[in-house]
Amino acid sequence: MKFNKVLENIENYEAGKPIELVVREFGISPKKVIKLASNENPFGAPKAAQKTIKKLAKCGNLYPDDSYFELKNALSKRFGVSDKNIIIGAGSDQIIEFLFHAKLNANSAVLVAKTTFAMYEIYARHVGAEVIKCQSKFHNLDEFLEIYKANRDKIGIIALCVPNNPLGESLKRDEILRFLREIDDDTIVLLDAAYNEFAAFKDEKTALYPKDLISEFKNLIYAGTFSKLYGLGGMRVGYGIADTQIISQLSKIRPPFNITNLSLAAAISALKDEKFVKKSLKNNLKQMTRFEEFAQEMGINFIPSYTNFITFEFDERFNATEICDSLMKRGIILRNLRSYGLNAIRITIGKPKQNLRVLANLREILGAK
Amino acid sequence: MKFNKVLENIENYEAGKPIELVVREFGISPKKVIKLASNENPFGAPKAAQKTIKKLAKCGNLYPDDSYFELKNALSKRFGVSDKNIIIGAGSDQIIEFLFHAKLNANSAVLVAKTTFAMYEIYARHVGAEVIKCQSKFHNLDEFLEIYKANRDKIGIIALCVPNNPLGESLKRDEILRFLREIDDDTIVLLDAAYNEFAAFKDEKTALYPKDLISEFKNLIYAGTFSKLYGLGGMRVGYGIADTQIISQLSKIRPPFNITNLSLAAAISALKDEKFVKKSLKNNLKQMTRFEEFAQEMGINFIPSYTNFITFEFDERFNATEICDSLMKRGIILRNLRSYGLNAIRITIGKPKQNLRVLANLREILGAK
Repeated sequence: MKFNKVLENIENYEAGKPIELVVREFGISPKKVIKLASNENPFGAPKAAQKTIKKLAKCGNLYPDDSYFELKNALSKRFGVSDKNIIIGAGSDQIIEFLFHAKLNANSAVLVAKTTFAMYEIYARHVGAEVIKCQSKFHNLDEFLEIYKANRDKIGIIALCVPNNPLGESLKRDEILRFLREIDDDTIVLLDAAYNEFAAFKDEKTALYPKDLISEFKNLIYAGTFSKLYGLGGMRVGYGIADTQIISQLSKIRPPFNITNLSLAAAISALKDEKFVKKSLKNNLKQMTRFEEFAQEMGINFIPSYTNFITFEFDERFNATEICDSLMKRGIILRNLRSYGLNAIRITIGKPKQNLRVLANLREILGAK
Repeated sequence: MKFNKVLENIENYEAGKPIELVVREFGISPKKVIKLASNENPFGAPKAAQKTIKKLAKCGNLYPDDSYFELKNALSKRFGVSDKNIIIGAGSDQIIEFLFHAKLNANSAVLVAKTTFAMYEIYARHVGAEVIKCQSKFHNLDEFLEIYKANRDKIGIIALCVPNNPLGESLKRDEILRFLREIDDDTIVLLDAAYNEFAAFKDEKTALYPKDLISEFKNLIYAGTFSKLYGLGGMRVGYGIADTQIISQLSKIRPPFNITNLSLAAAISALKDEKFVKKSLKNNLKQMTRFEEFAQEMGINFIPSYTNFITFEFDERFNATEICDSLMKRGIILRNLRSYGLNAIRITIGKPKQNLRVLANLREILGAK
C-alpha cells in the first residue's frame, strides 16, 4: 500500500524509558524506581493542580472549552500579551508541530543546532523539509547566521533551543536579539523556551521576555510549557506566543480539543502555585552542584547546565549504554543519549534523596570499571 | 509572511459551545446549565475512571508510558487483535488526522458523505487533498461506489461514519462488507465507529467487529473512541485498529506522549466498568423514545438515530439558530447544525431529568412561534 513519500524518511522518536517498563522487565516495585530521565519535576504535580484534578475527575466526560479562554487569560496576564498572541498545544511539542507543518514543505528547510531537541527534525520530515544542522557542539549564533545567509531562500524556520535540550547550554538574551535583527521577515525564529525559567533563575541574562520579543519581531514564536517547571509533563500543556499573524495561521491546523479538560484546569492552577515554582527552582540550582561536584571528583566531563538536568559526557573508559543498563537493573532510569549519537547520559535533577541514591549507584558502577 | 498554501483553504472547526461560555455570557450558574450539545456521556466519567484519576493526580508530572503497553493490551483482549494492530490517538479524531496526513496529498482525494463529521474535510485540507462529497442525504453505498469507480485513481481514502455524526443514520455491516470487496487494495476505507456501540446495542446488524474486518481487509482502519459511551470525552483517548502495515505507517507521525498519563490510566479503568457501559446504553435507548415522541407530537421531522443523539430537522416554520439562542439564554446548550448547512439541531440524549427540562423548554419555545 502506498503512503506519502515523506514517511519513508521518518524514524520514531525514542522516548525516555517509563517506570512501567522497568517494573515489567525487572520486576522492581514501582515505589522503588527512581526515574530521572525525562526532566519531569521531581516534586510531582503542584498541590493546587492536584486538587483541581481531583475535583474535576467526575467531569472527565466533558470536552474542554475549546477557546481555552481562562488559560489564555491567565497566560496573557502573566506575560503581558494579548490572548490573541497565544495558542495552546498538547505540550510545546505540539506548538512546534503546528509551526513546522504550517510553514515548511518539501522546498524549504529548518536550521537547527547540531545536538538539540529531536522533534525539530521529526516534524520537519513530516512535511519533507530539509534539516540543516550546524557543526558547532553548542548553539553558535555566528555559525547559525553564516549558514542562514548562505541558504536564505530556503530556510523557513530557525529553531533555537534556549536553553538547549539535551545538552543544557544556553544563549544570552542580548545575543539572541542581535541575531534576530539579522533575520528576514519571512523566516520564523522558534525560541523553544521549555526550560527557560530554570535558565532565568540561574542567570538573568538568559531570561526571555515574550512581550518585548514579539513587539519587536513579527517573525518570532516563543514556545513555553507546563511540562517542566510547572510539574505537569503528563498532562501535556504548552503554549506559543507570537504576533497575531503567526497565531492565526497556526490556529488553522490546531485540532479542536487538543488538550484535555483536566489539563486545562490543572495548568491554570499550576500557574498560580508560586510556592511550588520557587521550591522547584531553588532545589534544582542547589542540587545541581552535587552532580557537578560528583563529576569533577570522578573525572567525568559535565556540561554546565541552565536547565533541570545535567549531561555527563564519557570518554572511552565508559559506555553510556552499559551504565544506563546497569542502573536500570537497580531501578534507576536515566536518559542514554546514544540516540543523539553521544556517549553521554542526561540526568534530571531530582530531590535530595533521589540524587544521593543515583550518585551512590553511579559511583559504584563507574568505580567498578 | 508566507505560510503553506494549503492553509488558505482551511476554516476552523466550530465546536459545540462549552458550559463556560454560557456561564460567562449569560451569568448562569454552571450547575444550572444543561449541555446536551457534544454527545458526551451524561453520567459523567465512569466511577472506576474517576477513582484512577484521583489516585494519579499527584503524578501529573510524569510522562505516560509512550508504548501505551497496558491500554493496547486491554484493547487487544477486548477486540481479539494483536497489539501491533492498534494505534492510540488523542481521541479517534487524531487517528483520522494521522491517516489523512499519511495517505493524502495535493494529488489525491477523500470521498465522504454529504453531511458527516466535519473533521474529514478539515484534515484533508491540511494536506491540500480534494474532498469529494456524495449527493445523497444519508450514506448511500451505491453512490459511494459509483463515485469511487469514476475517480479510482485519485481517491486515497473513503470515510464512512457508522453510525453517522451529525445525522444519526447507520449502515448495516453486511452492506459495508459487500462495499469493501469492491475497493482496490490501495484505497483505505476508514470506518469511523465513534458511536458504533450505540448502534450495535440497538440493532446487531450494524455492529462492526474489527477482528473480522481487518483479517479480511488490509486496506481498512476501524477508529474507536473513549469519548462517547465510555464517558471520557474530556480525556481525549481514541484508537485505530488495522493491519500492521497501516499501523506502522501511522505510528511514524504519531507524536510521542500524544495522550496524557491520566487519560491512559482512565481509559484502562473505563474499559473494565461494564456496569457503567450497560447503564449508559440502556438509558440512551429508552430516553431516545422521549425525543421521538416529542418530535412526532410537535410535527417536527427527526432522523431515526443509531447514536447517543437525535437530530431534529426544521421546516420554514422554525429557525434552528433562533431556537438554540433562546435555549442558551435558559441555560440549555444544544448543537445548532447551521455550520453543516442545515436548519436542524442535534440533541445529545441526556439523563431523564435533563431530557424533561430540555423538552419542556423546547415545547415552550416552539409553541410560542
